[in-house]
Amino acid sequence: MTENKIRAGIIGATGYAGEELLRLLLMHPLAEIGGISSVSFEGQKISEVYPSLAAFCDMVLTDEDAVIANSDVVFASLPHGLCEEKAKKVLTLGKAFIDLGADFRLYREEDYQQWYGLEYKEKQLHEQAVYCIPELHRGLAGGKRLIGNPGCYPTSIALGLAPALKAGFVFADDIIIDSKSGVTGAGRGLSQKTHYPDCNEAFSPYKAAEHRHTPEIEQTLTELAGERAMVTFVPHLLPVNRGIVSTIYAKLKQSVTLEEVHRSYEVFYQDEEFVRVMPLGDYANLKNVTFSNMCDISLHMDSRMNRMIVVSTIDNMVKGAAGQAIQNMNLICGLPEDTGLKLVPPAF
Amino acid sequence: MTENKIRAGIIGATGYAGEELLRLLLMHPLAEIGGISSVSFEGQKISEVYPSLAAFCDMVLTDEDAVIANSDVVFASLPHGLCEEKAKKVLTLGKAFIDLGADFRLYREEDYQQWYGLEYKEKQLHEQAVYCIPELHRGLAGGKRLIGNPGCYPTSIALGLAPALKAGFVFADDIIIDSKSGVTGAGRGLSQKTHYPDCNEAFSPYKAAEHRHTPEIEQTLTELAGERAMVTFVPHLLPVNRGIVSTIYAKLKQSVTLEEVHRSYEVFYQDEEFVRVMPLGDYANLKNVTFSNMCDISLHMDSRMNRMIVVSTIDNMVKGAAGQAIQNMNLICGLPEDTGLKLVPPAF
Amino acid sequence: MTENKIRAGIIGATGYAGEELLRLLLMHPLAEIGGISSVSFEGQKISEVYPSLAAFCDMVLTDEDAVIANSDVVFASLPHGLCEEKAKKVLTLGKAFIDLGADFRLYREEDYQQWYGLEYKEKQLHEQAVYCIPELHRGLAGGKRLIGNPGCYPTSIALGLAPALKAGFVFADDIIIDSKSGVTGAGRGLSQKTHYPDCNEAFSPYKAAEHRHTPEIEQTLTELAGERAMVTFVPHLLPVNRGIVSTIYAKLKQSVTLEEVHRSYEVFYQDEEFVRVMPLGDYANLKNVTFSNMCDISLHMDSRMNRMIVVSTIDNMVKGAAGQAIQNMNLICGLPEDTGLKLVPPAF
Amino acid sequence: MTENKIRAGIIGATGYAGEELLRLLLMHPLAEIGGISSVSFEGQKISEVYPSLAAFCDMVLTDEDAVIANSDVVFASLPHGLCEEKAKKVLTLGKAFIDLGADFRLYREEDYQQWYGLEYKEKQLHEQAVYCIPELHRGLAGGKRLIGNPGCYPTSIALGLAPALKAGFVFADDIIIDSKSGVTGAGRGLSQKTHYPDCNEAFSPYKAAEHRHTPEIEQTLTELAGERAMVTFVPHLLPVNRGIVSTIYAKLKQSVTLEEVHRSYEVFYQDEEFVRVMPLGDYANLKNVTFSNMCDISLHMDSRMNRMIVVSTIDNMVKGAAGQAIQNMNLICGLPEDTGLKLVPPAF
Repeated sequence: MTENKIRAGIIGATGYAGEELLRLLLMHPLAEIGGISSVSFEGQKISEVYPSLAAFCDMVLTDEDAVIANSDVVFASLPHGLCEEKAKKVLTLGKAFIDLGADFRLYREEDYQQWYGLEYKEKQLHEQAVYCIPELHRGLAGGKRLIGNPGCYPTSIALGLAPALKAGFVFADDIIIDSKSGVTGAGRGLSQKTHYPDCNEAFSPYKAAEHRHTPEIEQTLTELAGERAMVTFVPHLLPVNRGIVSTIYAKLKQSVTLEEVHRSYEVFYQDEEFVRVMPLGDYANLKNVTFSNMCDISLHMDSRMNRMIVVSTIDNMVKGAAGQAIQNMNLICGLPEDTGLKLVPPAF
Repeated sequence: MTENKIRAGIIGATGYAGEELLRLLLMHPLAEIGGISSVSFEGQKISEVYPSLAAFCDMVLTDEDAVIANSDVVFASLPHGLCEEKAKKVLTLGKAFIDLGADFRLYREEDYQQWYGLEYKEKQLHEQAVYCIPELHRGLAGGKRLIGNPGCYPTSIALGLAPALKAGFVFADDIIIDSKSGVTGAGRGLSQKTHYPDCNEAFSPYKAAEHRHTPEIEQTLTELAGERAMVTFVPHLLPVNRGIVSTIYAKLKQSVTLEEVHRSYEVFYQDEEFVRVMPLGDYANLKNVTFSNMCDISLHMDSRMNRMIVVSTIDNMVKGAAGQAIQNMNLICGLPEDTGLKLVPPAF
Repeated sequence: MTENKIRAGIIGATGYAGEELLRLLLMHPLAEIGGISSVSFEGQKISEVYPSLAAFCDMVLTDEDAVIANSDVVFASLPHGLCEEKAKKVLTLGKAFIDLGADFRLYREEDYQQWYGLEYKEKQLHEQAVYCIPELHRGLAGGKRLIGNPGCYPTSIALGLAPALKAGFVFADDIIIDSKSGVTGAGRGLSQKTHYPDCNEAFSPYKAAEHRHTPEIEQTLTELAGERAMVTFVPHLLPVNRGIVSTIYAKLKQSVTLEEVHRSYEVFYQDEEFVRVMPLGDYANLKNVTFSNMCDISLHMDSRMNRMIVVSTIDNMVKGAAGQAIQNMNLICGLPEDTGLKLVPPAF
Repeated sequence: MTENKIRAGIIGATGYAGEELLRLLLMHPLAEIGGISSVSFEGQKISEVYPSLAAFCDMVLTDEDAVIANSDVVFASLPHGLCEEKAKKVLTLGKAFIDLGADFRLYREEDYQQWYGLEYKEKQLHEQAVYCIPELHRGLAGGKRLIGNPGCYPTSIALGLAPALKAGFVFADDIIIDSKSGVTGAGRGLSQKTHYPDCNEAFSPYKAAEHRHTPEIEQTLTELAGERAMVTFVPHLLPVNRGIVSTIYAKLKQSVTLEEVHRSYEVFYQDEEFVRVMPLGDYANLKNVTFSNMCDISLHMDSRMNRMIVVSTIDNMVKGAAGQAIQNMNLICGLPEDTGLKLVPPAF
């Protein structure tokens, strides 16, 4: 083990987000893998589960305790409801915990109860947790060791609306969000819906106005707007592997031109390496961000209806999960945020 | 030629809609092909352009006059601005004309001027023309010989909203429509955007709030609502060959339950063979309608926002173009509307 | 029930081949559905399993005995090893049985034992059974009531090689077949390999030189060649829903030109409605046959190597399964073979 | 400009291979972009042509002379027949030239004449040129400044067969290669064949036994075998963006077990970072190598036919073009070959 590298461990390394995290960490110049665990594949090499990793990482999957013992930062990519206990264990040892799941994203326990049907058992943990989209919350993360890594849809939406809400351009309480996600968003688990012939040449919404990301979206938008934000959120399953496009519709509060809005977005994100505000007239396309940590935003106006349209796109597995988790790791470990994340998106 | 069959001719037979029309007409038990024309491929066999048709139709593409001379019903699938002259020629001969393009869809010339930049040269023709989604307008088509065949997006949207607007459940003047279309919607012409590596594993909106189908959509919704309808309409290019999904967001005027809305849709479409109102809880998926003339509609409610969500899906090339054109031919020729259109959609 | 229609029943109607069969039978003008069964979904409507069928067929899935009782022709689409017993039951009642599986395809029991690991329990049944690719074996099917419907790969290969083997152009004992099949070929059952993100943007062979279709392929090629045929057969999983392309490499026995070979193919298939020999210079493409019962064959020559290359393509679910089964039903019931099968392939 | 970095320039930067090269060079720790040129887009920013590059590279495309003047190593990605002149210019200036096209791949001018229809005008240049798949030819590249970067198909094939030919396991003069390539292999130029609806859900061979890569393939196999190698080579267009799979069929000369062959491959490639010989029983899948410089090889045996089957897969744009070009740059510049190429392939 190298002295100066962060030892990063992954609990739940064989899910899609876990594997992507491992892949990116293997290319991170200042991290090394402390350990990887999996309940289903314990004792196997990760490269047996994912032959794409062969020669790059042939580590054996262990149990979570071995991972924790050997890591400085522990990532968990697990179904909700399992991470309080693991976070506690990790924090007790003085290490950092980054949860890619939903357990530390919602500040209001009643939201968690309502949308996930569970209670917070370790309330003091939640007081230490920071929900962190670095572009919006990095100021809160200083000195923290417990990060609720944001969900994929909420990341695309919060970045897409932040400048407009901050500037008070739009009404926050009646926003419509029509999102489309690639199939990796549904995870590695098998289902009829993601069986190739059922999913290919198909398209459909799901969980219309009842997706669990809704309270997370509203939490951030409320915080940005400084008033209660409410959204109609409808996700769709898109027959591509990766990428989310959120098309967002918001009523203008005031008379503002598209050029003014565009200018405010450019200013808002001028120092952000991972957000690109597209030239007016262009459309954000997931094609341009997949396999990278970028978020592309394009702005449009329906002047007949006095409505602003924002298109925000990210790679759901990178900026929407593993990449942002590493960005958060960099942040709390004092590294430049882009370390290991300077991934130029392929054009095809 | 068989005595009793309708002789159907196609002007512009080598575009995607023209070819699909030909394909469906070849399977129509009471039609035969009077002729097919193409400016670009005149003199070639259609099966040289589309080898899929070999043995089924090896007719030679001629000029339009030969087609008109030999047909009872003439279909045209051409860029806008070309059909007034052709329609005039056809009607003068006492034959019927069905335009799959935009030239006879808009009743108000000012809409055509505004969105297409052209004027109506033959105003009396437009007085004879009927814009006809048969499920909504069949009463108007009796005795008519000039049909403006509806656009793909407008068909999906009008069928998706008709019962709600008729019943006055929703506000007509602030509807948001987020549509997604398969790539055949962009036609057979080559473009960088539809080049496979640029289009595959990609997703993006286009012409946000400025698509030419907007006035056609509003024309029908206004007629249905009995008051001025206005929409924000944003289409997206979906990486599949066929199919449109329109996700429609409309504010409820009154307190009405999802069950009541659903019941009213079922009643509205109870005698319609080509519209299926899906069971509550299911989602319309383009998978279930492609290669058929069906329109599937699913209904959802965001009760937190007092908003109804309609998902309406069709095959853009069938119910959205060639199939509906044949349905219109059947209608004006006095055949059962479903003749040649009892196409059971493949499950995969 | 209509007097003159064939009552067709399907055992195993919820698998992909079963569903496709049902779909095609629903469009067959001289057949009606006698019944449909499924072990997994008994008691449910088929349209609950396949919403694409809603309104076209809302029949309830029963057990197999109800299907048999109410049908004149019983199709079975089941895993191998289950059909002897069902065929016996059906034949005893004087009805016809068409097995879409492997139980009645191999004439030599030792082949079945070697490749499927099972024995023939009802040997007399196998004496009555006919393996029937109608273009090659229709003469054998007269008066028969038990049909082993050919496999998808073997159909594409036998049709692709029949004229060359009959004419003695190529060596039969050293043929290489590189086949590629759409994912429906793997069936409706879930597997990691057919999980969308694992299967999309992927390509790989499987069961190289050990696929169970090998003896079936060799059986037919041997019969055509009049001498022992042997093949190296390697199938690949192709990321499309439907279609098989078999690229076949065979050494020329004699000096023969591509034009002579092509001419002999044209003559061989001149009366066949479902086989198209493509013009020299063109390439068979699965695109041109999917959703139809067609087989397209293109011919090429590597004159440097004295080797003929045949490309043969079908829709694995139609000519490779359900369509051919209906063609066989038509054949043994005395209907024109193309009844219900005049499906013009879509161009896109 | 940084003192110690290689200044790399790209002539033809807007083609697919050129863009991929630029993308990879932008992530190369010891290279910087000296310049980029394009005839079609001169004067525009590359990020206007490829929005995926925005913020990473907003350089303006110039003419080739500006590129050459400002670079130490010049890459060219152009149609064949254009590079002799450019190479001469570059070499005269004492710089290095790496041609991603075909002009310096064939040692025998008669091959170039026969397959490309052109002559070598600068014969002395060809004497200095090295055709270099580093795993096979790195010994030849020392001190050289003119590299013929190998083609995509030939790379997959040569790596797949090298150990077997070197060991004399198989006959070199009758090899059959059935290759499948993703659509980026056809380049950025528009064509009907690569129009999305024509290409999606389609599959077909092209240029059967007449593809221009044939002499390049045979040149390397001959060199490896030490005797005249001859192949039947049939490429297919695969509906994925990236990746090549070559399925290779070769007759065994001698009695050798699959295990022995496998062992010899493992030994042959034991020190190679970019080649993975898969465990016996596994199949090479392009999924596992795309977006990386890896070549995966799996080995199979048809013992009934005494034939070996090799499956070799690479990313056509990386190991088959831009990645290998960088590997060659590293090689001739004295850097570790894997510099900038430690790209872990994504699993999805």
